[in-house]
Formats: sequence, structure tokens, C-alpha cells
Amino acid sequence: MRVLGVDPGLGRCGWAVLERRGGRVAALGYGTIHTDGEEVAPRLAELATRLRQVLAAHRPEALAIERLFFNANVRTAMTVGQASGVVLLLAAEHGLAVTAYTPPQVKQAVTGSGSAPKEQVGYMVKALLGLASVPAPADTADALAVALCHLNHAGLAGTEAAGAASTEADWLARAAPTSPGLARKGGGR
Amino acid sequence: MRVLGVDPGLGRCGWAVLERRGGRVAALGYGTIHTDGEEVAPRLAELATRLRQVLAAHRPEALAIERLFFNANVRTAMTVGQASGVVLLLAAEHGLAVTAYTPPQVKQAVTGSGSAPKEQVGYMVKALLGLASVPAPADTADALAVALCHLNHAGLAGTEAAGAASTEADWLARAAPTSPGLARKGGGR
Repeated sequence: MRVLGVDPGLGRCGWAVLERRGGRVAALGYGTIHTDGEEVAPRLAELATRLRQVLAAHRPEALAIERLFFNANVRTAMTVGQASGVVLLLAAEHGLAVTAYTPPQVKQAVTGSGSAPKEQVGYMVKALLGLASVPAPADTADALAVALCHLNHAGLAGTEAAGAASTEADWLARAAPTSPGLARKGGGR
Repeated sequence: MRVLGVDPGLGRCGWAVLERRGGRVAALGYGTIHTDGEEVAPRLAELATRLRQVLAAHRPEALAIERLFFNANVRTAMTVGQASGVVLLLAAEHGLAVTAYTPPQVKQAVTGSGSAPKEQVGYMVKALLGLASVPAPADTADALAVALCHLNHAGLAGTEAAGAASTEADWLARAAPTSPGLARKGGGR
């Protein structure tokens, strides 16, 4: 299972490609695509170009995208919507299965709390993936987190072989001894 | 000057291609793209496919798009944003110059009042373009209206030859004797 996680945005769009290999999760690539300028259309084109490069380089099978929080303001919703429209279009055109997660779902999956602060998400992403440092900017950490969230949910929902679901619980238990709530959710073998 | 007008939306996306030919404006094509279903990504892909067909058939040079009203709710802003993200991406990828207009600007341009009701917009679009009937659904009428708005603004802003700007005032005056406010704005020869 290889998943592209995206935290959509026009100015900063976080992305991460994770792959589950047996009981481990490998980060194949991650980063944040920055665009700026007055005109929205060329920025969306730049975002699409960069995302197509990511898709071509890593060939993920699924997209996990962070869903907008409905307490956002209308202007934020509009620009996040524009960026997510481009992300979803590319996903459809590349045949990726799409799942959206709310910010609390993502936080719950990686920290055990749906209301964890941003720093805690970054810290846990680093710990779960064995990274050398906390990914920055936060958009990158959020993209890694939504991809991790998807690997967790995909395993639990039984869309993977039963063995994969329990080895996923294994890797979470191994990688994150401080997050028992999460590891427990996977169930035992 | 050939312009694609778009009233963006996920369920219904109005489009219209207008061309100024001397002192007249011709409607080359217009309609509303409908998409439905639970999943957003395939709907955006369908929207993109249909819009690419419009772009290939009519080869407009410019995009005029209706800008979201900021009194919209967040959910509306999100889905309109997603659809407009796709529209703007295609515009950039096809080299179209993009201009956004607010609903009051569009209403002002075709009815002389920024707060005109929807029916009045439909009525004036029919009158200005000499159509056999009021375009339906309203998304189609709104797309025609934003394209008309752009032809009006483009002429007034002097981005066309001076002759075109004044012949534009001429066609508005000829086509819309009931809309003196609009016709006057163009200035006389």
C-alpha cells in the first residue's frame, strides 16, 4: 500500500508518500510546494506541475487528503478549495482512490488525541517514521500525518489482508510506545 | 476577442463562449455542465473533461470567471473553490488570460444595477445577445453574463483598440436600448 498524503493549500501545499512494507512504514518522499504571486491560475498550474512530478516519481495508489475544517473562514475555504480541487482532479486522472480525513481524525491517528496541538503532531510524525528531525514547515508534517492516518484506517477497515492489518498494529506499537490508544485500536493477531 | 465565461460550481457549472465581431457580440456556445455522485474527485475529472472539450471546440483567448461572494457559507465556498480551481488550472494550461468579477459587477454590467434579481440578469442576457429565450438553468445565464461583463470591461479598459472600445458601446446601445447606464459607460465615438 503506497499512499500520497496531502495537506492542501495555495501558498503552501504539504505532500508525503508513505509505503507500508510488511510491518514497517517507509517515507518515500515528502515536502511542501510553495507558490506565490497575485494571480491564482498560474499558481494552481505550478502546483499541478509539481504534484504531477510527485505522482510520476512515486506512483502512489491512494490519496489521503486533509478535509477543511468547517470553522475556517470563507476566504480560506475558497483558496483551500481551489488547491484541493487541483489535487483531487490529478488524483482522479491518475486513478488514485481518494479518502478525506478531518483534522481531528488525523490528530487522533498520530497522537491519540483529536485536539492535540500542532507541535505534538510534528513530534509524533518524527517518532512514528523514525525521522531525524521534526518535518517543517507544519504543512509537511500534516501531509505525513494524513498519510499515516490513512495507512492506519485502511488497515483497520480490512481493505488490506488481515495479516497486514495486524502487522500495522505491530508497527504502531513498536514505533510509538507512547501512543497506546492508537496501537490498541489495531487489535491483536 | 473571444472569451469563455464561467459560473463555477461542482453540481452545476455554467459556461459560455462569446466573440466580439466588430460592433456585435456572437454567442458561439453555452450551457451548464452537471455532475453528481458522492465522490468529489471523479466529478472534478468529469468537469475538466467537459471544459477541455469546450476549450478545444471554441479556443477562447480569455477566461472571465464569477468570483465567490464572501457572504457564502464555508461549505459552499469549499465546493465552489474546488470547481473554480479546476477551471483556473485549465485556463492557465491553455494560456487564457484570467479575470474574475464579483456578482454585483456582473449584474451591473448587464442590467445597470449591481443588486438586480436573477430573473433580470436572464432577461437582459437574452435581450443583449438576441437569444430566442432566457437561458436556463440560471448557471448558463450567469456564465453568459460574466462573459458579457468581460467584453464590456475589456473594451472600457482600453485593452482593445480604441475603435473596438467605442464600437462596443455601439453594440450595447443598439442591443440594449433599455440599459442606458451601461451603454453610456462606453463613451461615444
